[in-house]
Amino acid sequence: MWTFVDSLQAAQREKQSVLCVGFDPQFRFMPPHLIKKYVALYGKTWEAMAAIYLEFNQRVLDQVAQFAAAVKPQAAFYEASHQMWEVLEQTIEYAESLGLLVIKDAKRTDGGDTAEAYADAHIGKVPFFDDSRVPAPIRTDAVTIEAYIAEACVSHFTDAIKQYGTGAFVVCKTSFKPNSKVENLVTTSGLTVWQELAQDVAAWGEGTEGENGYRNLGVVMGATYPEDAPKMREILPKAVMLIPGYGKQGGGADGAVAPFNEDGFGGLVNDSRHVLMAWQEGLFKCKSEDFAQASGYAARVARDDLNAALVRAGKCPF
Amino acid sequence: MWTFVDSLQAAQREKQSVLCVGFDPQFRFMPPHLIKKYVALYGKTWEAMAAIYLEFNQRVLDQVAQFAAAVKPQAAFYEASHQMWEVLEQTIEYAESLGLLVIKDAKRTDGGDTAEAYADAHIGKVPFFDDSRVPAPIRTDAVTIEAYIAEACVSHFTDAIKQYGTGAFVVCKTSFKPNSKVENLVTTSGLTVWQELAQDVAAWGEGTEGENGYRNLGVVMGATYPEDAPKMREILPKAVMLIPGYGKQGGGADGAVAPFNEDGFGGLVNDSRHVLMAWQEGLFKCKSEDFAQASGYAARVARDDLNAALVRAGKCPF
Repeated sequence: MWTFVDSLQAAQREKQSVLCVGFDPQFRFMPPHLIKKYVALYGKTWEAMAAIYLEFNQRVLDQVAQFAAAVKPQAAFYEASHQMWEVLEQTIEYAESLGLLVIKDAKRTDGGDTAEAYADAHIGKVPFFDDSRVPAPIRTDAVTIEAYIAEACVSHFTDAIKQYGTGAFVVCKTSFKPNSKVENLVTTSGLTVWQELAQDVAAWGEGTEGENGYRNLGVVMGATYPEDAPKMREILPKAVMLIPGYGKQGGGADGAVAPFNEDGFGGLVNDSRHVLMAWQEGLFKCKSEDFAQASGYAARVARDDLNAALVRAGKCPF
Repeated sequence: MWTFVDSLQAAQREKQSVLCVGFDPQFRFMPPHLIKKYVALYGKTWEAMAAIYLEFNQRVLDQVAQFAAAVKPQAAFYEASHQMWEVLEQTIEYAESLGLLVIKDAKRTDGGDTAEAYADAHIGKVPFFDDSRVPAPIRTDAVTIEAYIAEACVSHFTDAIKQYGTGAFVVCKTSFKPNSKVENLVTTSGLTVWQELAQDVAAWGEGTEGENGYRNLGVVMGATYPEDAPKMREILPKAVMLIPGYGKQGGGADGAVAPFNEDGFGGLVNDSRHVLMAWQEGLFKCKSEDFAQASGYAARVARDDLNAALVRAGKCPF
């Protein structure tokens, strides 16, 4: 079956890019002229807020689509109201209309039929009258999940992956500094909790392989801990690693590509704020009306920066 | 400051109840007459689906309000579309109009400003034009969170708790069987991961005390592992424990009240499916038109069952 990881590798080849652009919009990133435009139309309402965010996302998507192998909306920034949740739906739909793969960063987790409901909604199909099932409006090609609840959670996502050819990334080694105490606890077997979890992911991911041999159950692996990348890769040779922490969180391009395989695949590096805030600070700072173009420049530079790092590592497949 | 835990204890005294009713609606629980009514109005659309769920929730809320110290909508069942997300907002609003405390079961987690966005939306205030902040439409009195990401996540929720007097429950010891391998890993200090996490919660929760001395950073503690309840209580003497697993997941009332303190407080026992599905199975099975009344009966029985267990344990405060 042609699956998420196959589409991802094809997109990476086509765009010569291992970049994923994160859509983590915040009110402080919004250009004043967009705020003015929609407040004039709708007042200071959630309808205005939603319209501002949607136009911001769509214009940035237009500019970054050619440089990004995938995009990753962060659910946290769309949850405050149902109008914002609709912006998430519309952002997904618009990204798909541009031919982009969409990964929803939601870090969802639970067990039993609650986990099943999350898996159905985010990467499967949901019950919808007459015992039929349909893709939910917020469905994406892949989703991030949390696995403290372990198999009682993850099994529902691997079920959906196997049935629908979608994907999921388990939060395993995060990018934050100071790093989580929980993931770095050492167990009686001499491994850290994140290594134990990675071994579980290796077991849970069996049978989720795409046509290219990569697995559709991947992990989140922070760019800020490149020294741990070989250990993670040893446990998960055919996992795709979603790599946050490049850019604003301080991870350089060389660290960000450390988890990639020798074939130059098996990784996807996220950059959110550098791209979204490009009009406000840094090399492409400009007047707010040109916000989207600045984001396009930032995405292009990030793509090229990562490719240069892949070349330095002797792993560039393009 | 009068806080969430103070309101919770007051509600428990007033209703003589330690029951929390979970609102985990699924299409298979919906009474046929409601489906028929709204499909006739809106066709087989998300608008119809939303109207069915909302009327179901509101009628059940009417009946269970007098027997429940709090209610707990589960976010997973409202995420598939923005129409469903609006049902979550409306359910929260309706529950509040009945004087109920609302805990959102969302198990949210992330780090940095993403965690801040979750905390703002779920138990704080969100940025909303002109540098002002407002409570989001989906704000609730408390929320469940996941802490694999640890302090990079939880600190944002404790900030909101201290500022607004709301609450959060960290998933620590889950109710699922087979239980998570991750939480039961043993570390080099001889403790399980869940015990290590509970110690972290004890540290993070400092300064979140309400007027009654209980803390507004609590934990999720499964009813299905009563043998671990004293260990959890020893680490967290003044935490409120949100206790799932009573009822459908197999935990009895005696196990469910095991984590309570000697004063009969410090716990809240959740029952979702027994109450929501009461019209379909069990003692109060009835014709679908009487679904809400059946839920009311089931909630009353659950309340009394838990109080009887508190009496047997010598902890009933009512």
